[in-house]
Amino acid sequence: MRFIELRSDTATQPTQAMREAMYNAEVGDDVYGDDPTMKELEEYAPKLVGKEAALFVPSGTFGNQLSLFTHCKRGTEVILGDDCHIVMHEVGAASVIAGVQLRTLKTSGGEMNPDEVRSTIRAEKDIHYPETGLICMENAYSDGRVLSLKNMSEIYSIARKYNIPVHLDGARVFNAASYLGVDVREITKYCDSVMFCLSKGLCAPVGSMLAGSKSFIEKARKCRKLMGGGLRQAGFLAAAGLVALKKMVGRLGEDHENALLLGEELSKIPGIKVNMKDIQINMVFFDMSETGYDSGKLVKEFYKNRIKINPEENGKMRFVTNYWVKKQDIPYIIETFKKVLNENCN
Amino acid sequence: MRFIELRSDTATQPTQAMREAMYNAEVGDDVYGDDPTMKELEEYAPKLVGKEAALFVPSGTFGNQLSLFTHCKRGTEVILGDDCHIVMHEVGAASVIAGVQLRTLKTSGGEMNPDEVRSTIRAEKDIHYPETGLICMENAYSDGRVLSLKNMSEIYSIARKYNIPVHLDGARVFNAASYLGVDVREITKYCDSVMFCLSKGLCAPVGSMLAGSKSFIEKARKCRKLMGGGLRQAGFLAAAGLVALKKMVGRLGEDHENALLLGEELSKIPGIKVNMKDIQINMVFFDMSETGYDSGKLVKEFYKNRIKINPEENGKMRFVTNYWVKKQDIPYIIETFKKVLNENCN
Amino acid sequence: MRFIELRSDTATQPTQAMREAMYNAEVGDDVYGDDPTMKELEEYAPKLVGKEAALFVPSGTFGNQLSLFTHCKRGTEVILGDDCHIVMHEVGAASVIAGVQLRTLKTSGGEMNPDEVRSTIRAEKDIHYPETGLICMENAYSDGRVLSLKNMSEIYSIARKYNIPVHLDGARVFNAASYLGVDVREITKYCDSVMFCLSKGLCAPVGSMLAGSKSFIEKARKCRKLMGGGLRQAGFLAAAGLVALKKMVGRLGEDHENALLLGEELSKIPGIKVNMKDIQINMVFFDMSETGYDSGKLVKEFYKNRIKINPEENGKMRFVTNYWVKKQDIPYIIETFKKVLNENCN
Amino acid sequence: MRFIELRSDTATQPTQAMREAMYNAEVGDDVYGDDPTMKELEEYAPKLVGKEAALFVPSGTFGNQLSLFTHCKRGTEVILGDDCHIVMHEVGAASVIAGVQLRTLKTSGGEMNPDEVRSTIRAEKDIHYPETGLICMENAYSDGRVLSLKNMSEIYSIARKYNIPVHLDGARVFNAASYLGVDVREITKYCDSVMFCLSKGLCAPVGSMLAGSKSFIEKARKCRKLMGGGLRQAGFLAAAGLVALKKMVGRLGEDHENALLLGEELSKIPGIKVNMKDIQINMVFFDMSETGYDSGKLVKEFYKNRIKINPEENGKMRFVTNYWVKKQDIPYIIETFKKVLNENCN
Repeated sequence: MRFIELRSDTATQPTQAMREAMYNAEVGDDVYGDDPTMKELEEYAPKLVGKEAALFVPSGTFGNQLSLFTHCKRGTEVILGDDCHIVMHEVGAASVIAGVQLRTLKTSGGEMNPDEVRSTIRAEKDIHYPETGLICMENAYSDGRVLSLKNMSEIYSIARKYNIPVHLDGARVFNAASYLGVDVREITKYCDSVMFCLSKGLCAPVGSMLAGSKSFIEKARKCRKLMGGGLRQAGFLAAAGLVALKKMVGRLGEDHENALLLGEELSKIPGIKVNMKDIQINMVFFDMSETGYDSGKLVKEFYKNRIKINPEENGKMRFVTNYWVKKQDIPYIIETFKKVLNENCN
Repeated sequence: MRFIELRSDTATQPTQAMREAMYNAEVGDDVYGDDPTMKELEEYAPKLVGKEAALFVPSGTFGNQLSLFTHCKRGTEVILGDDCHIVMHEVGAASVIAGVQLRTLKTSGGEMNPDEVRSTIRAEKDIHYPETGLICMENAYSDGRVLSLKNMSEIYSIARKYNIPVHLDGARVFNAASYLGVDVREITKYCDSVMFCLSKGLCAPVGSMLAGSKSFIEKARKCRKLMGGGLRQAGFLAAAGLVALKKMVGRLGEDHENALLLGEELSKIPGIKVNMKDIQINMVFFDMSETGYDSGKLVKEFYKNRIKINPEENGKMRFVTNYWVKKQDIPYIIETFKKVLNENCN
Repeated sequence: MRFIELRSDTATQPTQAMREAMYNAEVGDDVYGDDPTMKELEEYAPKLVGKEAALFVPSGTFGNQLSLFTHCKRGTEVILGDDCHIVMHEVGAASVIAGVQLRTLKTSGGEMNPDEVRSTIRAEKDIHYPETGLICMENAYSDGRVLSLKNMSEIYSIARKYNIPVHLDGARVFNAASYLGVDVREITKYCDSVMFCLSKGLCAPVGSMLAGSKSFIEKARKCRKLMGGGLRQAGFLAAAGLVALKKMVGRLGEDHENALLLGEELSKIPGIKVNMKDIQINMVFFDMSETGYDSGKLVKEFYKNRIKINPEENGKMRFVTNYWVKKQDIPYIIETFKKVLNENCN
Repeated sequence: MRFIELRSDTATQPTQAMREAMYNAEVGDDVYGDDPTMKELEEYAPKLVGKEAALFVPSGTFGNQLSLFTHCKRGTEVILGDDCHIVMHEVGAASVIAGVQLRTLKTSGGEMNPDEVRSTIRAEKDIHYPETGLICMENAYSDGRVLSLKNMSEIYSIARKYNIPVHLDGARVFNAASYLGVDVREITKYCDSVMFCLSKGLCAPVGSMLAGSKSFIEKARKCRKLMGGGLRQAGFLAAAGLVALKKMVGRLGEDHENALLLGEELSKIPGIKVNMKDIQINMVFFDMSETGYDSGKLVKEFYKNRIKINPEENGKMRFVTNYWVKKQDIPYIIETFKKVLNENCN
């Protein structure tokens, strides 16, 4: 009997098509540049996002950190949102590997204020100042919201003006494109490099891509080796990745619809507050504090009912829809929630 | 003919007493622990700020960075104000030497909100989280304002609760104590380590002190050697430092009074806005944008009149009073300012 | 038509059994600790090498660097052989990620002189000295030779005495065990942590293991996340890894026999010098300078004959036998070599 | 009553001329470029060593590390002697601040073998290789010996060929020049940057110079600020430094003569072995193991007799002559040594 997985889209199982592609993959030693399937992925992926070249990396964190490391001289500053993934969920890696100084700005739904970005750039030469080495945006943002093209465009213009590169943490950039109803290149044109995940909503088992200019990716390839990311017969992972990019990108809208539906139903449960307008991709954030129910206990009770969820983080619960959560699962989820809350009252 | 120095109190000349103390200083090789004058300073200084031990360092930046390096494991997080000296004016050193990740919080007059500090601490163990390694406060703050004891006390309590050390950038901590009308130990009791400068308002030519527990300072002494701060016959600098601590601390109030007077007089000049309640120590910040006068040109015109000033930084002008700016200099400064602005109009 | 692969055992294709195991693998999100196949591997692997726990890593370089990063405080010293993999072939990563200082010793066939190791340890406390943080051995060594148990035991005793941990780069430790005719635990008992590869001679497509004490591996798991090595449905790679450890370890002796045979035959070609006693595992190093033939050209000519080889490095050619090079391929390799050299003469 | 100081020339007291120069020094804020005495030093010093520009630094370690940090990108390799000061006595700083990987070569009297230097350079592009970022020489060497111009010239030629910069740790480069009987520029022409100490044999209380091209020094000035070496009224130290360079360089030969004399006399004491041909500058290394006398005890006994010495390091005793040890002190030192050894026998 299967579990319903609501913790994260990182927990998605690969599809049968992926398993078959992996089984049949033609592989070689990718450190020698000999893996034909990886080559195919590294040709296919950059076109999809409008870049010259791309590189496979073992994880999204690896891809972001590789980008920081490749773009930035040590000791330079990176301007980014104060609760983005690089700041919050990458174990402080930016200070260890790239050795950069974070300048974090408050965001509104992931959007940094362009004026603040501008005034944070170290425009003047001053012996007390580090250089601004990079600006990072994240779209979709960790809080499930999507940056507008306008915001990205404004920030990118500023970066261009000051000749500062822009990296996009696009772990869920295809979700963002789906929400905005645009080709993903309408988003990625506002960055110089982009990391996007083959895993997560796209269901590949392992890996992300870092895309950018040819010279950037060439440099990143060596930096990847330094970071221990030079893989051997990586074509197995590339095979699944190709399925992810070719077959799974187009269906992300379903997850978003399911998230909206799930949000609506959750908001009908007494004591649960859902900010519906913040459900933009496949993430439903909600506040259940008024129910008085402990989120850790909820995790356990849901598990007994074969639903996997995470406890709250900073006072917020998050349910994440994905390929393996079907529309018809939603009533069961809601029922379970009500049942658990009710049992508590009795 | 002398210049009036308003750029910074870092530009203060040493006093005659300091020159004499240096001339007569008994010195030895301080790396061997053989310098008697340095020993005297390293015994006197910690008592003054209520700590067990202290270490001489060549600059305030050195002292702050040494403190980060000694307190923090690489890759841990440091919580601090977003426009404090460590973030703004230390060339990004924290990401190079200590290798720490900065978590910056907006401040109000240098004060971080204790609730925000609390929620920024990585209280939970999570594989995605770096540890919180340090909390830094700065008093007086770079913007010339003084943190209240209440604010410091609240943040220190939180830090204690989570077992996180607190460092105080006290470059101008004696100015803060003077403003608050308390013994400096009333401030420094809310930190585990404190850096304070012998130069700046205290007029010593070179150097700052890092004070803390015996074990911290012992560890810092080795880290200082690594950072290239193991000096030889450093007793010359210690001799001036002892004069600074013994003779100059008590007179900082004069600089504050002069700053208030200067601020009042400046505010009478049409087009100049001074926020009088922010003049707490020896710094007068003002906005001269309404005069339409270019600050770079002002620097040159003042220089012709034998007054040294800095151009604006982020839209703010700053005049700094100090031992060498006497009350009777203020009318001349104001006259010069008016004359320069008038010449421009004609 | 297949190629004969002599460049490196890193280029080995996975076996059919591995493809099937991958196809059928039960997987989950390994960052959540949910991947059953990875769990099986991480239970099986440490027992094999006599350690408490183990962790999957994406590459041998990743495993070595993770070990340095986990064992060592930044700025400490690592004692190791001057031409070992960590020094020569890991892109200088030790200075970037772990931030350690290398103290390299000349080796004889990979063996450091125990007396030199002892005198290189920073035994005394001195303000000028970094701490010795780690000693690394590599067995089998990059030059294809195997360290004796006596050498390892002596160095490990010294390390114990000074309370310094020992890491073993065991990329080919099963080859070493096969050569020595001992259980691999007779080797790994002389280290606190060991990295060994599932790829290379064991033919798994991707990955290596880092094994050590429970507390070490727990710490390494978080460091792995920082380095971007937290994989999602990594069970696919674990499935192949389990086949590698269960089915492929026992047959490495064949590769060694083939290497000896290949070496003998090569040594019969005029102008080629093979040091037969240095062929201990699956690597045949030889000097072809007397043939006057350019090694870059040789690579191309061999390729036309469907044999992949590398050009010389530091004046040495290296042929590596592996699962996919059968005994019956050797005459063809030798013939091809002779043919190419002869064509040159005409 | 004075002590005779034989531990190190780092313990030299400044001369009366230095005290007076300091007393009368005209100073300013050197971070603002306002210190006239420092300016004078930074103009005088580079000419002396044939470089375009120079920078004052608080210590020799600071200067060496600043040079590594300024020359090298993080993760690049530095080729240097295996027992030079940077490796042995700078607390592992190169791995913390510059973040470089050390490739150490055995030396003969401080001289690296040029062929070995050449073969250690990463001449080929290879994805496994870090770049070679710097070659360091040290003259005079830590063991008191002087590198020949021939050796330096050969290594510098190789570096030029591969376009790799060369740094000279010239802490005692004036001693080397005196021994070789050449202008110091005959030595420093074989490097791109040189650090030399104002303290040590030249008797200034604090500080060293880093000299090189204009663009190198400009970059180093900012890096110095990052490392906390931006001093304020540093002209006091510059004043003593100018005396050191103008008055003390020419007399170093006396210290060398005294060292030779001291060595000869020591070698007459039974059980003491002095390698006379290794006494090239002001350092006398000797082996007293045959006397059976404990070196720690010797330190104490000498101290009672008002002579300061260090205990042995790696089995070697070292006595260092300097300005404050006069020729007529030598008989007293020898007598004391004999007396102490004799008392032990009774």
